[in-house]
Amino acid sequence: MQHGGGGNAFGNLISNGSYSFSNPVFASLAGYSSMALIKTLGMSVYTMIQRFRTGNFATPEDDIYKQLMNKLGFSGSATTGNKNGPVERARNNHLNDLENTIPFVLVGLFYVGTRPKFDYALWHFRIFLLSRILYTIAYQVFSYIFLY
Amino acid sequence: MQHGGGGNAFGNLISNGSYSFSNPVFASLAGYSSMALIKTLGMSVYTMIQRFRTGNFATPEDDIYKQLMNKLGFSGSATTGNKNGPVERARNNHLNDLENTIPFVLVGLFYVGTRPKFDYALWHFRIFLLSRILYTIAYQVFSYIFLY
Amino acid sequence: MQHGGGGNAFGNLISNGSYSFSNPVFASLAGYSSMALIKTLGMSVYTMIQRFRTGNFATPEDDIYKQLMNKLGFSGSATTGNKNGPVERARNNHLNDLENTIPFVLVGLFYVGTRPKFDYALWHFRIFLLSRILYTIAYQVFSYIFLY
Repeated sequence: MQHGGGGNAFGNLISNGSYSFSNPVFASLAGYSSMALIKTLGMSVYTMIQRFRTGNFATPEDDIYKQLMNKLGFSGSATTGNKNGPVERARNNHLNDLENTIPFVLVGLFYVGTRPKFDYALWHFRIFLLSRILYTIAYQVFSYIFLY
Repeated sequence: MQHGGGGNAFGNLISNGSYSFSNPVFASLAGYSSMALIKTLGMSVYTMIQRFRTGNFATPEDDIYKQLMNKLGFSGSATTGNKNGPVERARNNHLNDLENTIPFVLVGLFYVGTRPKFDYALWHFRIFLLSRILYTIAYQVFSYIFLY
Repeated sequence: MQHGGGGNAFGNLISNGSYSFSNPVFASLAGYSSMALIKTLGMSVYTMIQRFRTGNFATPEDDIYKQLMNKLGFSGSATTGNKNGPVERARNNHLNDLENTIPFVLVGLFYVGTRPKFDYALWHFRIFLLSRILYTIAYQVFSYIFLY
């Protein structure tokens, strides 16, 4: 009780500690982290779209897609190996998500255990998610407009 | 008690919440996630094996291994920089594991907190682990047979 | 209580289970993991320093930095695309951190749930953190001295 009561908004006497959805800090970490992780997973789909759009595939066995696209009349620009092309940009963005989102979630899990103030924690999580989304838009959309 | 009793199969009155090995959903997440993570770590060993097999090392200081292999009579095909070679294939597979397994484990941790039905959760975890293993076999073994 | 009392050094009767800072094993995992994760995040800064030092930037829009550095009199060696250069070395080190530190933290979270002996767990975490730091020093500093 002396450990469990601090961060719990619902005042139940026998608490489950910090790591329970009855702790609003943990619930908001879970929500915002899941959104950031789903965004990270979505980069796979985005990379795949860029691969089909440019006809730049990863492995020799994927050339079957290229032949298919040629038959269907989509020629593709076939920029295999162009390190600054849209595909590399999508892959770098995906790696950047791994490098930042995943340590954030893990440190966030420990942070919840320190029983931070709900408002402070909530805005940390919100600003983090927003910054990841804005980074992706800036890196993919604006750069694309100005450079290609 | 009102929060702790839901997902707990052993009926103890004072529960530890979702995140305890007395919760079978958490225990199965821990087991299947650990297997998937050990498989991910194993890709380092697999990449190393491919580096020695093809004589394709990462850094100049690793050339000492190449000289050693030459002395021992293993010539190696020395395909440094060949982006579709077996080493790149192993590295891409390792990165793909990071991109999928780690978000799965993190989202899985939050999923356990939502007190899912044990059977549904168990089969999610099992199918995920199986799909990671089948992906690796397909990407490494079959492609290798047909292409090299 | 029968589940919560085992790993708890402070003898409170109503425990929060393994995942609470009142469990010293969890507290030490949180401390050493956070240090390892902050070290991982620091590789971004290190890569950025190497990019500015060598004038080797990632994307066309970063060429504005190169022009700025040229105006300020720092010419930079402009080794774009040199795969064994200091920038690639920093990026590989960052990826190696992701490949090892993050599975370690996740498996560590499940390990805490098994209620290991405090001393064993503490030394696991200490040796892991030390090995990550020594790896980075060896890969970045010593290789740099002998090769460049």
